[in-house]
This record gives sequence, structure tokens and C-alpha cells, in this order.
Amino acid sequence: MKVENPAERCTSSGGEDFFNITPLWSSGEGIYSEIVLSSRIRLARNLAAFKFPILSSVKEIEEVFAFISERISFVPIFSLAHFSAFEHKLLLERHLVSNELLKEIAGRGVGIFSGESISFMLNEEDHLRMQSIVSGLELALAYKKLNELDDTFSTSLGFAFSPKFGYLTSCPTNVGTGMRASVLLHLPALVHSSKIRKIVDNLASIGFIVRGFHSESAHIEGNFFHLSTQPTIGRKEEDLISGLHKIVMQLIEYENSARELLLKNAHLQVEDKIWRAMSILKSARLLSVDEFVNLSSAVRLGVGLGILKDVKISTLNQLLIFVQPAHLGKLLGEPKELAEYDMRRAMYVRELLNKGG
Amino acid sequence: MKVENPAERCTSSGGEDFFNITPLWSSGEGIYSEIVLSSRIRLARNLAAFKFPILSSVKEIEEVFAFISERISFVPIFSLAHFSAFEHKLLLERHLVSNELLKEIAGRGVGIFSGESISFMLNEEDHLRMQSIVSGLELALAYKKLNELDDTFSTSLGFAFSPKFGYLTSCPTNVGTGMRASVLLHLPALVHSSKIRKIVDNLASIGFIVRGFHSESAHIEGNFFHLSTQPTIGRKEEDLISGLHKIVMQLIEYENSARELLLKNAHLQVEDKIWRAMSILKSARLLSVDEFVNLSSAVRLGVGLGILKDVKISTLNQLLIFVQPAHLGKLLGEPKELAEYDMRRAMYVRELLNKGG
Repeated sequence: MKVENPAERCTSSGGEDFFNITPLWSSGEGIYSEIVLSSRIRLARNLAAFKFPILSSVKEIEEVFAFISERISFVPIFSLAHFSAFEHKLLLERHLVSNELLKEIAGRGVGIFSGESISFMLNEEDHLRMQSIVSGLELALAYKKLNELDDTFSTSLGFAFSPKFGYLTSCPTNVGTGMRASVLLHLPALVHSSKIRKIVDNLASIGFIVRGFHSESAHIEGNFFHLSTQPTIGRKEEDLISGLHKIVMQLIEYENSARELLLKNAHLQVEDKIWRAMSILKSARLLSVDEFVNLSSAVRLGVGLGILKDVKISTLNQLLIFVQPAHLGKLLGEPKELAEYDMRRAMYVRELLNKGG
Repeated sequence: MKVENPAERCTSSGGEDFFNITPLWSSGEGIYSEIVLSSRIRLARNLAAFKFPILSSVKEIEEVFAFISERISFVPIFSLAHFSAFEHKLLLERHLVSNELLKEIAGRGVGIFSGESISFMLNEEDHLRMQSIVSGLELALAYKKLNELDDTFSTSLGFAFSPKFGYLTSCPTNVGTGMRASVLLHLPALVHSSKIRKIVDNLASIGFIVRGFHSESAHIEGNFFHLSTQPTIGRKEEDLISGLHKIVMQLIEYENSARELLLKNAHLQVEDKIWRAMSILKSARLLSVDEFVNLSSAVRLGVGLGILKDVKISTLNQLLIFVQPAHLGKLLGEPKELAEYDMRRAMYVRELLNKGG
């Protein structure tokens, strides 16, 4: 397993280093990657020999950190204290840490592997929150990657497990597999045709969770959706994954039908919207995150429909990461005023897209 | 005086012929032509030997038409009946005829000279409505051109003139010089800084008329304004013209100050707006007249500020004429559905601007 050093990657000095590295999931090479941006598996694990983090003192949490660091020393683990506050923001924007984890620094840490396709948080809600994230609709692949790590860690660390309930976690909803499988979907035609509301309601009624682009909020932005399994006791990992896979395959079919209909009934309107979005991204001098996300959705649709031929999905994915404030600051220097972010964002997007990305 | 044959130019058959001819005023070569699109002089004249058109029967109007055609046979005059209904729309869009003139066909006619820089209507409200229109702020030049024609016509036709009141016209407000001088102005910075309302009020209070882009309505579109003299008894042509000239010079100064301030206080916002406008015009697949007029205003400002270097004012002027429905129909064939106009307009604008106009 190739292990990169996140501390090296995230130094605030250069910029170049971090800039050159994009997460593997953003390659756009997975199947259906124009509609399914990424597949993600998360496993929650706790050490049998220690109290759960939520019940622990700082000292106990630091003991867990030391224990884990020693037992799995073949993996570089970094304390949050190794990073600056600015670097915490970078990690957050890359979804490598959670807001929850950043609330405390002492005893909290992070591990990042293989181009960010595997990472874990130490002493968040649970002792270990491992995640695997890959391009396209590849839930089984993501699970396979993470499962190997889980086995290794299990042997070294000894996880809290009940034969009756399964893996034990801080939050009762995670007890069992401790797993959550999720995908990030792009469903512009279903949003445009107003079918999405009913679909979301149906998905919720059969036990799935649907969230907007910023997974914390239910607000729909840029026609992006996080779809994930509800954690459930008594179901196997494979069943949860195949259930989600089936649902996603169905959504892809719905989305493609809606696209065909859209092209049939409003071809010019769709083309107009796509070309305008592309040219605004290529020429704007000021750009907010929200506007970028929305315009990039139209461009992504344009790529999917074969209307825009010179844009790569990987470029659009890369932009989704690097238009965020901390990433812009890393690339172009921290701006003096908040308003400068919009200028730098526009500059960055313009450069990347005019390069013929 | 070079005389072109408007009937040849306006046949509905070819398209190419009409397409290739743009009015001389659109050249953008006159002074201040980025702010002052055109200067226009209009003279209202009536024949002493005949009743005014509004008091005449169709037969009498046709007699006037015959009389004028015979007396000034060195100029080709065309009856409206020579043109198709579609060609009437073309003439209207070029401001060579008025809606008023088109209400009746019999005995009504039009003469067009020198790349449309001089034209006249026969038997509109007055027997003769002559106009001269030139690029930029060139009121004296426009007047000089028209004055020569006026003298020639006067000798041949004998105009109704009272030593006390001056030239006699159908509408009492035109009595005197029968003249109206006007300019088409582009004042985006004054609109943006909200100073325009006060300026318009002031201009009205000292006897000027301010209208929007479509001179019939007071609605402001694309930051374009028609500014004209009130017809006034007892004032000389030269005084009216120099009065308007002075006011326009002042408006140019105000506009330029407002532009400097805008660049100082909101440079990025202005640049952003200009580049977005340009790129939308270069890429849209659907475009209404209103949207074109508004976006072209931002582009025109960009040219004026030196931000857009590859766009010619003449191209923007040409587009203002050719994006109109009849002109589009002439160029690209009459569309079957109304919605097609927006598509053809977008196509035409795209082609012209991407050519590097």
C-alpha cells in the first residue's frame, strides 16, 4: 500500500505541492462517472479495550491515539496538532475530516492513503471512522478496498464487537455493520422535469437518505445529491451495498430517460443553457461557489449529452474541490478581503477551462 | 449625389443584396461615436400649392405624389405600393419610414439616398419629411447635408412658408423651422450611478425630449437614449443645433466622469459584467431583442473602456439593425414559428462576433 505523507502535502509554504495533487476519486474514470461522481463507504469502529470517545477524558483520548499509533505504526497517522488552522480547512474541504473532529485537537488525528481513496479519522464520534471513496458507481470496489484495511486494523487493534449486535458504536444507529454506503449523484434532467421531489420522497420511504451537495444541508444545489444507506442493525454489508447499487442503477435510467425527453422537447433551450454556462465560466471575473456549482452542473450535463466535447469530467471534479475558499487561498495566496475569493475563483476556473480542460 | 435604388435593395428574393448594405451612420466613424451612436436632423415641409395631407382626400394625396415625382424626377421616389408588406417592415426597422406613413399606401412614398444618410417620406403627416442621419456627434454635418437637399427641393416644389411664422406644418408644434435635431446616446455609467433620472428631468425642464431606445416609448433599454430638441417657433436652425450640441458635449463629459468613478470603485464588477455579456453574445443559442440590446450595451461600454479590444463599434451598430425580426427574416429566411427568431438572432450575433467583428 502506497502511503503518502499528508503533512508534506499540506504545508502552507509552497502551494504547488498541494495544487498538483487531486484525489483519485476525481479522475472521472469510474463507470457512469458523469452521473455518479463518486462512491463512498464509511466504517465506524471502536477499540474493545477503551471507552468510547464521547465518554472519555482528554487523557483517555490521548491514550487511544498513542495506542493506535503504536499498534498500526506501518501507517502514518497525524495528530490534528500537526496541521495549522488553515490546513484544517483544507482537510475539511476535501472531506478528509469532519467539523465534529475539528472541535477538539488533542488526541484527534487523521490518516490518508492512496491518493485519498482511503482515509480515517481518529477519535471523532468513534475511535476510528474509516472511509474509502472512488470514482463513479463502484460501491463494491470501495468496500473491497476498505475491508482489507478493516481486517488488518481489527487484528492489530481489537474492535468492540457483540455477536448479537455486531460492531458497537457511539451512536446506536451505527451499531451492526458500522457502515454507511453513499454516492454523489448529478441528476439535472430529473430536477428540470420536477420528477426529483417524488423520487426523493420514495427513496426516503424505503430507507435511504438524500441530501444536497453540501451534505449537511437538504438544499439542492447544482442538481447534486448525496444518496446514502440508513445504518441498520441486522443487515449485511453486501446487502446494503447491492441495495444501494440497484437503486442508483435505476436512478441512472430515470435520469437518462429524462435527458432524452428534455432533448426532444427543449433541445434549443438546453443547448442555450449549456453554452451560456460554459462561456460564463470561461469569462467571468467574479464567481461565487454557488454560481460555480450551478453553472458547472450545466456544463457537466453538456458533456454527458455530447454537446461539449472539450471538457473533461475530471476537470469539473477538480474544480469542485479547488474553488473552495481554503483551496483557493492555498493556490493563489490568502486574500486580504473576502470579496477577493470571488475574483480568484473566477481566475482559477477561467484558466483551467480555457486550457481546454 | 449618388442615388441608390431602394426597390432593388429591398427585394425579398435575394437577401444577400440587402444584407451587404449597412447604413452609413452605423460606420462608427463619427466623433464620440461610442457614446453618440448617431446624429439626426429632420425637416418637415409642405407644398404651398396643395392642402396638407391630413386635410386631403386620397385623390389629392395622389396628385401631390405625382406632382413631386415629376418636379424632382432627378431623384428616384418609390411608392409604398412598390414594396411588399415584408419590405415595409424592413424600411420601418431601418427608421426610413414611420408607422404613421404605413397606415395608408396610396400616394405614400419614400426616397433614400447616399447609404441612407438622407431619406424622405412623402405624404406622411406633412407632404415631405426629410431626414439626414450620420455617425457620431455631427449635427452640423447632418444639417448641412439636408439643407442642400432642402434648397433644391424648395426651388422645384415651392414650400408653404409664412414670413411671420416660418415653414407651415400640419402639427402646429413643428411650425417655424420644421426641424427636429436628435442624437442617439449610450449612457451606461450614468444609468448605473443612478444619476440619469435627475439629468433627464433637468433636460426636460429646459426644453429637450428624452426617450428610450425604441423612441416611441419612455422605457430605458440597454442604456440607450434618444435626445431631441423640442420644435420651437422663433428659433433659428443653427441655434437649435448648437444648443443640442452643447448639451451633448456636457452629457459626454458627465458620462466619462461616471465611467472613471465606476472603474475606480467597482472595477472588477464592471469587467465581470462586460466579459460575461460578450461571452453570452458569442455563445447563446437563443436571444431576444431586449436581451441583445442590454448585453450589447455592456459590450459597447467594454469597447469604450478599452477592455474589449477586438470588437468594432460598427459591428455593434450593424447588429442593432440586423437583430430585428424582419432583418433576420430577410437574412435567414422567414421562420415558421415565432420562437425561431430567438434562435436565428443568436446564430447571427454569434457568427458576427466570433468572426472577430
